[in-house]
Amino acid sequence: MPQAVAYAIDSPTGRFSRTTIERREPGPTEVLFDIAYAGICHSDIHTARGEWGRDINYPLVPGHEIAGVVRQVGSQVTKFAVGDRVGVGCFVDSCGECAQCAAGDEQFCDGPGGTVWTYNSTGRDGLSTAGGYSTAITVEQDYVCRIPEGIEMSQAAPLMCAGITMYSPLKRWGAGPGKRVAIVGMGGLGHMGVQIAAAMGAEVAVISQTMSKQADGLRFGAVEYYATGEPGTMKKLRKSFDLIISTISGEQDLNGLIDCLVTGGVLVDVGLPEHPVALSLGGLVGQRRVLAGSEIGGIAETQEMLNFCAEHGLGAQVEVIGGEDINDAYDKVVASQVRYRYVIDTATFTD
Amino acid sequence: MPQAVAYAIDSPTGRFSRTTIERREPGPTEVLFDIAYAGICHSDIHTARGEWGRDINYPLVPGHEIAGVVRQVGSQVTKFAVGDRVGVGCFVDSCGECAQCAAGDEQFCDGPGGTVWTYNSTGRDGLSTAGGYSTAITVEQDYVCRIPEGIEMSQAAPLMCAGITMYSPLKRWGAGPGKRVAIVGMGGLGHMGVQIAAAMGAEVAVISQTMSKQADGLRFGAVEYYATGEPGTMKKLRKSFDLIISTISGEQDLNGLIDCLVTGGVLVDVGLPEHPVALSLGGLVGQRRVLAGSEIGGIAETQEMLNFCAEHGLGAQVEVIGGEDINDAYDKVVASQVRYRYVIDTATFTD
Repeated sequence: MPQAVAYAIDSPTGRFSRTTIERREPGPTEVLFDIAYAGICHSDIHTARGEWGRDINYPLVPGHEIAGVVRQVGSQVTKFAVGDRVGVGCFVDSCGECAQCAAGDEQFCDGPGGTVWTYNSTGRDGLSTAGGYSTAITVEQDYVCRIPEGIEMSQAAPLMCAGITMYSPLKRWGAGPGKRVAIVGMGGLGHMGVQIAAAMGAEVAVISQTMSKQADGLRFGAVEYYATGEPGTMKKLRKSFDLIISTISGEQDLNGLIDCLVTGGVLVDVGLPEHPVALSLGGLVGQRRVLAGSEIGGIAETQEMLNFCAEHGLGAQVEVIGGEDINDAYDKVVASQVRYRYVIDTATFTD
Repeated sequence: MPQAVAYAIDSPTGRFSRTTIERREPGPTEVLFDIAYAGICHSDIHTARGEWGRDINYPLVPGHEIAGVVRQVGSQVTKFAVGDRVGVGCFVDSCGECAQCAAGDEQFCDGPGGTVWTYNSTGRDGLSTAGGYSTAITVEQDYVCRIPEGIEMSQAAPLMCAGITMYSPLKRWGAGPGKRVAIVGMGGLGHMGVQIAAAMGAEVAVISQTMSKQADGLRFGAVEYYATGEPGTMKKLRKSFDLIISTISGEQDLNGLIDCLVTGGVLVDVGLPEHPVALSLGGLVGQRRVLAGSEIGGIAETQEMLNFCAEHGLGAQVEVIGGEDINDAYDKVVASQVRYRYVIDTATFTD
């Protein structure tokens, strides 16, 4: 069995430490690849710290923003060859046969067992899946994407979750020329949303809590930048945007954002607040507005997003860290101190 | 000035009584028509009783579900002739020039003054508008629809609000063959929604509080009928519908309804609850679902709806009442005792 060096956490209040895990030999249609970088997504933190109320199978190896290079392929693998640059996102398997899978929405698999998530799920070998904070992983070829030349591997890793999370709703709800799009929150998701929406041709605004990241926002392609912390901002923005994507998972003024939509405008939420929000339905009804949810994207759409990013020269702005830095990085993500995504360099695992 | 006999209410706690009001002489592009029937919409009651917290200009003549016959036309009227069967809905004027009006969404007029509502608004003569509980009304021809032959006038009146309120979201969100559509609430709106959705070719279910109207629902075209008051109903309906239209304006289990949507399904709310509702965003995000609002429809779409109803032999199921019955009818509407719309016969006003 191939072994991998990994960073795992033992309990909700534990700290990450180095360990060794086993990966399965690639089956006929599977790929074993060496992980180069793994992004740290806020949902890794929620999961590792048990904040979502789900059963967590400790020791946990998180990581679903994975970029690496193929080391070994099964005998029937047709999609990849040794040496290929590849990426894996939030899931590594699904039934492949239900209506959702057939439509390319494997993230919503309705089959028995449903979508198999990249970590803290049960893989086809019956073992708990372990994610990208490790030096290697074995994945069925149909759940692997190709990272185009032209995107640096470290910048590609976060695209596998943050990138597709923003690309999918922007495309679905028509971001493009002549459309005014606002991205709410300038974090790991938001900074990708600004870049992607701008590359799609939309006129992009950022709605953040403060003006502290304004220069970055404009550099990423926004033409306007607003701070909710400044009095009168939301009132000034009434009926301003065709499409708003909110990346906020904490408390937010959902009704205020809805009022920032034009008639018929669409607010897509991709954040997951812990508690229900108070929604005034009049803001939707009286202007025929839409509030939609969105969650990552399927494999084909993720590949499309990677190709789009390569074509437009987009990638995550990352801070590369070592395995020993993960604990510290978690605290900084929670404190919104990262610009804009921590990416773990797995080469540091075997120093 | 043409005079009309009307029923007006003097205060939020008052009762309707007969009075005489003045209508303006039709201008060059206006139509004066004799009202035959006016439907009683629940929003008439909310307005008359001051339950929406808006300024009400008493004495108030409600009524925005109006059907009648043209008596007189202005010199430049091209769309209608004396004797034509016509209908007027929730609004009688708008700027005609803003983007919303240009797009045929006069109900969302962004012009100065905005949409002029059929009652309790300020008309182009500077006077407060008075609605359909009267024997005649003068309206600009562009805000008048033609009632096709084949729909009885009494059954046509409620189409002008209840009909278009349901038709617009059903069409916009793709009700049709192969789609499972649920209508929540079997009242004035709901009973039209069932008929229209079925005529569009969708497989229609009703979600009501009890099974008491099941026979009617099936007669209107539903193939399934569910009662939220029966234990386990919502659980049984998880992920069942492509499209749900909720007509509920009281307390409702919005999150439960969202869970009844398939992945990517759409819940359209047309009711206006008094208070904010607690929304769990996870139900939208985790299944890429949509929560949308909708409010009546523009003039062109209302005409399209009337033509559709005529083509399919649809109309409101009404209980025809006289002017003296309005007070009693209001109480019965509030108590959900009407099957399914009270329509006032204005011939009784001059008995």
